[in-house]
Amino acid sequence: MKDQNISELGTSGTAQGFYIVKSIEVRKSKNGSYFANLTLSDKTGELNAKIWDAEEKLQNVFEPGSLVKVRGELSLWKSNLQLTIKKIRKTEAEDGIDMEDFVQSAPESFESMYGEVISYLEGMVDQDIKRLAGYLLEKAKDKLSYYPAAKSNHHAIRCGLLYHTLTMLRVGEKIASVYEKIDRDLLYAGVIVHDLAKTVEMESNEMGIVSDYTREGKLLGHIIQGITDIEKAGEFLDTPKETVLLLKHMILSHHYEPEFGSPRKPMIPEAELLHYLDMIDARMYDFFNNLDKTEEGEFTERVWTLDNRQIYKRVAKKGRKNNEK
Amino acid sequence: MKDQNISELGTSGTAQGFYIVKSIEVRKSKNGSYFANLTLSDKTGELNAKIWDAEEKLQNVFEPGSLVKVRGELSLWKSNLQLTIKKIRKTEAEDGIDMEDFVQSAPESFESMYGEVISYLEGMVDQDIKRLAGYLLEKAKDKLSYYPAAKSNHHAIRCGLLYHTLTMLRVGEKIASVYEKIDRDLLYAGVIVHDLAKTVEMESNEMGIVSDYTREGKLLGHIIQGITDIEKAGEFLDTPKETVLLLKHMILSHHYEPEFGSPRKPMIPEAELLHYLDMIDARMYDFFNNLDKTEEGEFTERVWTLDNRQIYKRVAKKGRKNNEK
Amino acid sequence: MKDQNISELGTSGTAQGFYIVKSIEVRKSKNGSYFANLTLSDKTGELNAKIWDAEEKLQNVFEPGSLVKVRGELSLWKSNLQLTIKKIRKTEAEDGIDMEDFVQSAPESFESMYGEVISYLEGMVDQDIKRLAGYLLEKAKDKLSYYPAAKSNHHAIRCGLLYHTLTMLRVGEKIASVYEKIDRDLLYAGVIVHDLAKTVEMESNEMGIVSDYTREGKLLGHIIQGITDIEKAGEFLDTPKETVLLLKHMILSHHYEPEFGSPRKPMIPEAELLHYLDMIDARMYDFFNNLDKTEEGEFTERVWTLDNRQIYKRVAKKGRKNNEK
Amino acid sequence: MKDQNISELGTSGTAQGFYIVKSIEVRKSKNGSYFANLTLSDKTGELNAKIWDAEEKLQNVFEPGSLVKVRGELSLWKSNLQLTIKKIRKTEAEDGIDMEDFVQSAPESFESMYGEVISYLEGMVDQDIKRLAGYLLEKAKDKLSYYPAAKSNHHAIRCGLLYHTLTMLRVGEKIASVYEKIDRDLLYAGVIVHDLAKTVEMESNEMGIVSDYTREGKLLGHIIQGITDIEKAGEFLDTPKETVLLLKHMILSHHYEPEFGSPRKPMIPEAELLHYLDMIDARMYDFFNNLDKTEEGEFTERVWTLDNRQIYKRVAKKGRKNNEK
Amino acid sequence: MKDQNISELGTSGTAQGFYIVKSIEVRKSKNGSYFANLTLSDKTGELNAKIWDAEEKLQNVFEPGSLVKVRGELSLWKSNLQLTIKKIRKTEAEDGIDMEDFVQSAPESFESMYGEVISYLEGMVDQDIKRLAGYLLEKAKDKLSYYPAAKSNHHAIRCGLLYHTLTMLRVGEKIASVYEKIDRDLLYAGVIVHDLAKTVEMESNEMGIVSDYTREGKLLGHIIQGITDIEKAGEFLDTPKETVLLLKHMILSHHYEPEFGSPRKPMIPEAELLHYLDMIDARMYDFFNNLDKTEEGEFTERVWTLDNRQIYKRVAKKGRKNNEK
Amino acid sequence: MKDQNISELGTSGTAQGFYIVKSIEVRKSKNGSYFANLTLSDKTGELNAKIWDAEEKLQNVFEPGSLVKVRGELSLWKSNLQLTIKKIRKTEAEDGIDMEDFVQSAPESFESMYGEVISYLEGMVDQDIKRLAGYLLEKAKDKLSYYPAAKSNHHAIRCGLLYHTLTMLRVGEKIASVYEKIDRDLLYAGVIVHDLAKTVEMESNEMGIVSDYTREGKLLGHIIQGITDIEKAGEFLDTPKETVLLLKHMILSHHYEPEFGSPRKPMIPEAELLHYLDMIDARMYDFFNNLDKTEEGEFTERVWTLDNRQIYKRVAKKGRKNNEK
Repeated sequence: MKDQNISELGTSGTAQGFYIVKSIEVRKSKNGSYFANLTLSDKTGELNAKIWDAEEKLQNVFEPGSLVKVRGELSLWKSNLQLTIKKIRKTEAEDGIDMEDFVQSAPESFESMYGEVISYLEGMVDQDIKRLAGYLLEKAKDKLSYYPAAKSNHHAIRCGLLYHTLTMLRVGEKIASVYEKIDRDLLYAGVIVHDLAKTVEMESNEMGIVSDYTREGKLLGHIIQGITDIEKAGEFLDTPKETVLLLKHMILSHHYEPEFGSPRKPMIPEAELLHYLDMIDARMYDFFNNLDKTEEGEFTERVWTLDNRQIYKRVAKKGRKNNEK
Repeated sequence: MKDQNISELGTSGTAQGFYIVKSIEVRKSKNGSYFANLTLSDKTGELNAKIWDAEEKLQNVFEPGSLVKVRGELSLWKSNLQLTIKKIRKTEAEDGIDMEDFVQSAPESFESMYGEVISYLEGMVDQDIKRLAGYLLEKAKDKLSYYPAAKSNHHAIRCGLLYHTLTMLRVGEKIASVYEKIDRDLLYAGVIVHDLAKTVEMESNEMGIVSDYTREGKLLGHIIQGITDIEKAGEFLDTPKETVLLLKHMILSHHYEPEFGSPRKPMIPEAELLHYLDMIDARMYDFFNNLDKTEEGEFTERVWTLDNRQIYKRVAKKGRKNNEK
Repeated sequence: MKDQNISELGTSGTAQGFYIVKSIEVRKSKNGSYFANLTLSDKTGELNAKIWDAEEKLQNVFEPGSLVKVRGELSLWKSNLQLTIKKIRKTEAEDGIDMEDFVQSAPESFESMYGEVISYLEGMVDQDIKRLAGYLLEKAKDKLSYYPAAKSNHHAIRCGLLYHTLTMLRVGEKIASVYEKIDRDLLYAGVIVHDLAKTVEMESNEMGIVSDYTREGKLLGHIIQGITDIEKAGEFLDTPKETVLLLKHMILSHHYEPEFGSPRKPMIPEAELLHYLDMIDARMYDFFNNLDKTEEGEFTERVWTLDNRQIYKRVAKKGRKNNEK
Repeated sequence: MKDQNISELGTSGTAQGFYIVKSIEVRKSKNGSYFANLTLSDKTGELNAKIWDAEEKLQNVFEPGSLVKVRGELSLWKSNLQLTIKKIRKTEAEDGIDMEDFVQSAPESFESMYGEVISYLEGMVDQDIKRLAGYLLEKAKDKLSYYPAAKSNHHAIRCGLLYHTLTMLRVGEKIASVYEKIDRDLLYAGVIVHDLAKTVEMESNEMGIVSDYTREGKLLGHIIQGITDIEKAGEFLDTPKETVLLLKHMILSHHYEPEFGSPRKPMIPEAELLHYLDMIDARMYDFFNNLDKTEEGEFTERVWTLDNRQIYKRVAKKGRKNNEK
Repeated sequence: MKDQNISELGTSGTAQGFYIVKSIEVRKSKNGSYFANLTLSDKTGELNAKIWDAEEKLQNVFEPGSLVKVRGELSLWKSNLQLTIKKIRKTEAEDGIDMEDFVQSAPESFESMYGEVISYLEGMVDQDIKRLAGYLLEKAKDKLSYYPAAKSNHHAIRCGLLYHTLTMLRVGEKIASVYEKIDRDLLYAGVIVHDLAKTVEMESNEMGIVSDYTREGKLLGHIIQGITDIEKAGEFLDTPKETVLLLKHMILSHHYEPEFGSPRKPMIPEAELLHYLDMIDARMYDFFNNLDKTEEGEFTERVWTLDNRQIYKRVAKKGRKNNEK
Repeated sequence: MKDQNISELGTSGTAQGFYIVKSIEVRKSKNGSYFANLTLSDKTGELNAKIWDAEEKLQNVFEPGSLVKVRGELSLWKSNLQLTIKKIRKTEAEDGIDMEDFVQSAPESFESMYGEVISYLEGMVDQDIKRLAGYLLEKAKDKLSYYPAAKSNHHAIRCGLLYHTLTMLRVGEKIASVYEKIDRDLLYAGVIVHDLAKTVEMESNEMGIVSDYTREGKLLGHIIQGITDIEKAGEFLDTPKETVLLLKHMILSHHYEPEFGSPRKPMIPEAELLHYLDMIDARMYDFFNNLDKTEEGEFTERVWTLDNRQIYKRVAKKGRKNNEK
């Protein structure tokens, strides 16, 4: 029997393949027996799976992040694909499997993305802000090579944090070409630094799978942590106070609303724009990520990260290429 | 004595010039006498002016939109410039004055802007949506040659509605080059059509000065009016139902929040993006419009259109050109 | 064994009868087996039913709206009656069963109700508004003969939409006799038209059972659709603009709050009153519908359509007839 | 010179007449002198008036509720009529003026209205609730002969509280004839009692002019006071506990929302209906009270008691009588 | 086999002991069988327990408040201890068990606590308020000997209502020693009376276990009931009106926010302080009650009574005694 | 003529004395002339004063914080005392006036208060937290000798920040004696540090008069600044990370609600209590500060800092001393 990628699976019959355990939870059912609820993933997508009559200890055997070989029966459950696992084991050396090939990652390589971010840095005219942003970026470099941008929201994929940052830089550059009064140095620095403290807020393994928020993350959050990091870096590098102050303000205000963690609203145009860059990139990701799994002419289920909206996949017109101009 | 533009005025002494009456209100003061409160404007800015011991009928003599010759004394009032008018009269033929030279207008000409919007239309692949958007644009063409985008919010200048639309198209084009799955035809059509019904919602003279909202504007609003316009145009042009439906949805949802007039949130990515294009363009306008009147290192007063925020004008670094790259 | 109406059922023992499947959902239980959760109904009420160890395909066999013969065991579950189905089959010609006899419908016949609505129309003095409301009513006539007023809220019964409309007309007539300045023509037209677009917003079969909201319903909603319908009808009939405008405003504002779909609050007394007629009729229906199933001196469970309130059934006094005067 | 009613006044020229001082406030103007701002009223309406260069003590001379003879100059101020008072004196015995003739009162006599309320009481079947409501009504009878329903909101006219109550009874009777399950005794008792404690909450003179809220009114409010009154009356009359409880619940919940003073929402249908009767009567009063002062085709200014809406007076059609049927 | 207290139980193996049934609910599982979900408690804590394959009638056999002997198997379920019951029976005379020994109660005896509350009463200078508060306290004395302060929130233990009251008095005394202008008589009376009507709002057995809210509790709530009690007591004792009014205001406002049941905010300092005493005592109870069950360095699950926060148990420093000074 | 303290002034006649200019604003009146609006203060209170027909430059002559000699006429304006200034000059050396004698200050001396705060520090058992709090306190010592706690809210008096802190420590000590599990070291450190960054957020002169918020204050606020200060001090002193983290969390959460500046709610009991200490001290100050100026049996005007409540001054009972026990 041939191994299959998740995207190749049908909606019934037997399936087999290597997948990553993204999450696993053993629960007791109403009749007293145990079952395991898993999220499996590979490069091509995610899949819900169940093990009925499971043992409680399974949870510790196939911990999140482990690569497993699985066989089971496919079925549709409320129009979602589900795999009832019949066999499961961990991969072994003999399988000759490379973890990297199974992780859902940003669509560009870390090296290429990091390099492109560096090129934005290098284009900066203001040496102080360049040094400050560069210093903070460099410190987070290792973690950026695998951290996702979130536990389960937008860009929750390997290297998603860097990918999110880079896309925002690209869009920021475009928009700044229309609104020419925008200070690009400040905008780019804000983008580069805005979510760096997510690497402290969350615990992620090298596959980009987040197990939980850290103690610091729960008690303070990445906005507050990011601000103290900027403050300390600015002091270390002797950055002009105004520069440090503006960057701290940009981080503080980038969630825009108090109830989303920003006690101040943006008071400079670069902070205002930073917020919209962040929103647009998150929303475009979530929209297309959900539409990719939907049929034309259909609505998705309610999407939590999109304020519980159902979203709609339009019917494409025959013979049309959408994006020609 | 030489006539002066508003931007050339000092903060004291006598001033003289031709200005447009943007608004005038005669009020009774606490001691029973009347005074007139005017907003004067020319191409270079706006100016508050007072006529003390005025007559009640002044209001009808110098109605909004009229071009007047004025002489008076300048003073600073709570750090705002104020002109105490000593002499005022309407312009006469002999003055040889061309109204056009005094109106604050969009920074590009109507012809050039309209032409550029047309070029976005012409690039569309989907002939149905092209015809629909083109039809609605054409019908509003005359009014677009002078309508502002608002009574007193962002882009409240002559031809501001078209300028706002065009800037959104430019930014939309840029962003769509990053998020390639965006359907450009739909996005551009949404941008072109999104505020057209403001020409029905508000009463504007040819100088782009809005006297009031119309009865239709108050009872329904431009979103509802825009939607019925699309519906009727779609029926007239026999546009595919899906196309009409999506465009109506984009208009309906572009204010995003129910309390701002949108009973539905965006359910397609083009509608989501349309909202952000609108927000960014409005916000950038308001930010820079306010910062232009502010000293470096200072905060503005609270700005009503920016959620009552005070905004801050950063201290520019010596020898730096912000926007070089 | 005798067939029983739902209202005749006891709380235990075996039960048998013909019922309509109002909804059916096959779910997988925690132990991996399937069960079906059904809502059965007849003229006299609704009943929850379960089929344990069901097959997945059941869902397609006994689809909503089908008339079935059922036998099973009754029990009380959290003080709600529940039927555990042992036998179930579709009705056949030989059963000699008339669907009509099993559908929970408005308490008056379509013909009689429609006739009474027409009599309100005929009493109108303003011929324009009479023609406009009559035209829209006529177009919806077929669907009004079975459409409910909602998927699961108030008046979710066959012909419930027309019944809701008629009751509002009756109450409106009464109230207008106290507040004599109310324009009855406008009020009645508003009532007749206010929910007509629900026939486009929802998909209902001829038994008045709604399967889902339509694409138009989700992307626009019945308020927006109703407004464009009025606009087009007004144009077709050459109705005076003021009349069309007021009617559109009434539809737009009848949900009163932006978060319930009305971007404008009522600005004319007839629109204000229309809102209260709608609320009162919906609330009285929901109150008595719930109290009918409750014992005296008891509270209901929390009722979703009544803002999650528990409501109370007062203890009736012996020998009293409540409604004598 | 002839005395004029307020409704007869033009918009300029000299005016003279007897009016009631509804409110008076002496203020210091920005130049240090004093002026008095008065609201004058008679049976036909209200009028804003000013005394320039007033003395501070005026406030004590022409206190609210006093009847004065006035002469002055009329003018339009922001489309509101204003009287600049030149002469003012208190009425004297010789004027032969009867205060009653000048007070804006409910459109029906106290005796007739009170009698009609009694007839609702007498029709009650439940003797306990009849006795309870009757007892509370009787205790408030004297004050009902002049108390308004509010300081400045709806029904702020002499005997307005009783008029508001009676209209609600009339509408309640009509609605109960459609929803026959409504317990009329309970509904009528709720209406009669619902605002009685406003006579304790506010301080009103016999002209129905409220000077202020009482200490009890500020610290507790009429809902809480009404409830303790019912409790004590019920104990005194030995009313069945269930009856007292339901009536207290109706009073407690009749403002519907916590932020408007109701910690509980209605849990019985009569309480639900009581709320809507209250809303409808208040709103119809405010709508028509404002429209009476507005031209056809025009909007009012924003009306505070109507959630700051502008309301619209429709253009009547020629030859139409609105309320014929 | 030895009987064990709940606090002595391990996390696996067999357990046996006498416990009180705090709640029991028999539910139908997804496969059609029944199981019982119980909360067991003794003096040392609470324990979740399950009976699989239960009979429906169990619910009536082991009703809340009954003392049972139980044997079963322990396991950890989502880090919560759970007992799978194998044997269960009611206690019998022969068991020689005293109910009192098993009830989770306030940490001090009723007599001692009541006596201390009386001593606060006796210290009052104002004889009127002393008599009023004393009268109301005396009437509730019996119920105070076992009533909890809540069904499931803070102080939901036997005699918890009195304990909550006493702790508030102690804290109130301390705070009043810093803010000397506080009227202690009024403050203490407010504390003593503030929740007395909870004895009418809830139905509790003598073990302090609440089965439900009463009809009065649901339709009115303890704030409204407490106010009418004060009113009637004040009338009976001929207490000065100002005193009664202030005390009623304190009860009315002590929940502070309309949406939590207080239509008025505190208008006297003693009412303001009463609110904070109530909050502090409730919050300290909930914080420490939850932290007691948590490991150092860990967060709790989300706690409903603490606005769904997770709370954190700090890592204690070696060799430190926290509360020395 | 004798100089008078503000508290000694009558309500009419001539008054003379030395006062501090707390604020001054020259405004243009509606008739074009200027007048100055001043707040004068001395140790005994504040007084509104006016200079009619003022010159614009006055604002710069008598700037805030200057000590002036004044003569003028007293009057009551809307029940507030007002001084119409006839003569005003700055104090001179010859006046022999000591500024200190005129400033409204905390009721205890800086030295005594600072010493008492130090004694709380010295009692700490945890040397790390003692060092950290001590270090931050020491750095702010100079400013604490005059900084108020706010620009115009509670404790807006000289040395008010330290006084607020000390009172909170006293109350905190009392409450911790009832809830013994509270970690006093952490609580005291939180209190001491919680508002220190207000010395950076606001610009105050040595008289404790705040001219404005600083740039840092507007862009970040004292909560964010306080957190970075703790972080840097902790790094400098090598304080254990857990200690620094908890203290940062306490500062972050002490305003409790996001819309008041706290993105996190308290997650440890000491943070919860810190919030209530802060609230109680602010509220008691505002209550008594307002009641001191109010007659018995009267309500204040609406007080902005108390959520716009009117507050009530109870009628004291004859012969009663409130605070005896």
